[in-house]
Amino acid sequence: MTKTFSSLLAIGCLVSGTALAQDDLRTMALDMFAPIPSTTPSFENNPVTPEKIELGKALFFDPRMSASGVFSCNSCHNLATGGDDNMPTSIGHGWQKGPRNSPTVLNAVFNSAQFWDGRAPDLAAQAKGPVQAGVEMANTPENVLKTLNSMPQYVEWFQSAFPEEANPVTFDNFAKAIEAFEATLITPAPFDAWLNGNDDALTDLQKTGLQVFVDAGCAACHAGINVGGQDYYPFGLIEKPGADILPEGDKGRYAVTATADDEYVFRAGPLRNIAVTAPYFHSGAVWDLRTAVEIMATSQLGADLTSEEIDAIVAFLQSLTGEVPEVVYPILPPETASTPHPSGVVIE
Amino acid sequence: MTKTFSSLLAIGCLVSGTALAQDDLRTMALDMFAPIPSTTPSFENNPVTPEKIELGKALFFDPRMSASGVFSCNSCHNLATGGDDNMPTSIGHGWQKGPRNSPTVLNAVFNSAQFWDGRAPDLAAQAKGPVQAGVEMANTPENVLKTLNSMPQYVEWFQSAFPEEANPVTFDNFAKAIEAFEATLITPAPFDAWLNGNDDALTDLQKTGLQVFVDAGCAACHAGINVGGQDYYPFGLIEKPGADILPEGDKGRYAVTATADDEYVFRAGPLRNIAVTAPYFHSGAVWDLRTAVEIMATSQLGADLTSEEIDAIVAFLQSLTGEVPEVVYPILPPETASTPHPSGVVIE
Repeated sequence: MTKTFSSLLAIGCLVSGTALAQDDLRTMALDMFAPIPSTTPSFENNPVTPEKIELGKALFFDPRMSASGVFSCNSCHNLATGGDDNMPTSIGHGWQKGPRNSPTVLNAVFNSAQFWDGRAPDLAAQAKGPVQAGVEMANTPENVLKTLNSMPQYVEWFQSAFPEEANPVTFDNFAKAIEAFEATLITPAPFDAWLNGNDDALTDLQKTGLQVFVDAGCAACHAGINVGGQDYYPFGLIEKPGADILPEGDKGRYAVTATADDEYVFRAGPLRNIAVTAPYFHSGAVWDLRTAVEIMATSQLGADLTSEEIDAIVAFLQSLTGEVPEVVYPILPPETASTPHPSGVVIE
Repeated sequence: MTKTFSSLLAIGCLVSGTALAQDDLRTMALDMFAPIPSTTPSFENNPVTPEKIELGKALFFDPRMSASGVFSCNSCHNLATGGDDNMPTSIGHGWQKGPRNSPTVLNAVFNSAQFWDGRAPDLAAQAKGPVQAGVEMANTPENVLKTLNSMPQYVEWFQSAFPEEANPVTFDNFAKAIEAFEATLITPAPFDAWLNGNDDALTDLQKTGLQVFVDAGCAACHAGINVGGQDYYPFGLIEKPGADILPEGDKGRYAVTATADDEYVFRAGPLRNIAVTAPYFHSGAVWDLRTAVEIMATSQLGADLTSEEIDAIVAFLQSLTGEVPEVVYPILPPETASTPHPSGVVIE
């Protein structure tokens, strides 16, 4: 393997040497990846309007959507810190620890499905999960609606966001508004500028890293707009990592499909903003990006990459760190006498 | 009392009837209160610069300032919900409950001292408290500095904010930067527009409420720019409320001064944005503003206000709800290999 990659490195260095070689690399890359679009993604069943985005932003940042009043969507998918929370697994209601690492909300709209096991087909379905999960926000749809209906400002915002509906304050629309806001959370990166034709947007080392990434086989699973997030693969295809990284109790997609083939199968992580979303893997057990790349090479590809090759891949991955759109912190509707009080009580 | 206040109501109604009466009311009001200034307040020992404000904003929103990575300043002083957290007392590290209601950070710069017992002379001193409190953020100055120093972007921001210091990353400067950001969190309200000469900024009922507020004696304690927050008074001056509202275990300012006279003495609550910062009192035991006004009238003034008088005061208090300045949500520096990992471990 080392020999092959040494020659790849040589190719990689050549890439930056000639315009033709760079064009070849770009043509190959565009065959596997795609740049982030310049406009907000759309949904067939959920038109994205400015009113819906504003409502969704309010809901995303509102801790009153949790039973305790402590957690909002933004608590675990913090837009200030890469769209995730910098923890192995999140802390939720009653100081419980979640089962899996919180994935970034940035560019999540480009994943083919949501959650590490893909159990939610889209962002709206995803948004209904954590709100109700006992270890996360521990709320109920009924209490969410009671909370929203208690604040006239929220009712008005729902009316503006869903103008054709007689009773727009529903849990489905709650989720659709959040989906609309999250569709705006896309982060164009140097890699996109390079895919779009700017030769100088990547460094030579990053271009070499891209070549190694593709030739080593990483792109077989980590492809598409999100450089991952498109399909499911066994963690440990070639060599199963230790239980510290792949805990035995979490069988991944098996919980969704109940198919033996899906034991320890997880969605290939989307790699956009990966350099700013440590710790890594569904277990959140690995803090260092370089180590994560090494583990992937061994467990998924059986590849014994050189230190230089790993460095180049890490450099390429850093070119996926994008610009987070400017978000004005919302001013939320004030509570009224009928707003349910927060309850930090943990039901055992 | 009722008779007196009925005549006051009559005066109040007159107030709106003639320009002269209104001018008299304004002259009287300007003798007790002051409008929010049009510029950011300054500090003798802490010049407020754009760089310091930006750094302070980042620190204010950064959950990595807490040991667990769960709580930022904004968790309990949420700018989206009136600068507080809508809970009787906050939930902190390890799901512990705090001892007192979280006061709003909005306009806190105008309080003569910070905390319900005034134990911090200024916002910088205040900012050092919750970070270290075991029931709140449970961190140490050492770990805060280790965290900040691990991120080159933060070190640069400290250098820009404190350009004359050789080693600007200190816990004192951490607090000073937060103080500078908090100085920008001032909220001009209809009451200010009226104090500044706009006759139409208050409704007739609000003007009547102001007159009742002053004549009943509320303004004896709730005065100044913040309509409170200036001095300390026994809770239950005339009639002590029940232990549900005034818990016996919390002796207020006595803990600061160890003077018997200071038992159950608290800072008069600043009333700006009071309509959007329920629940009320240091115990957070009362959810309804009208009820809170009734309790104050009885316990502090021995006044038996009519229902109309209470209504008028509540209407006046609503004129203190101001416009929160637009805050762009910060993008925080990414962690590095040397950033301390979050620890949700609770030390018993």
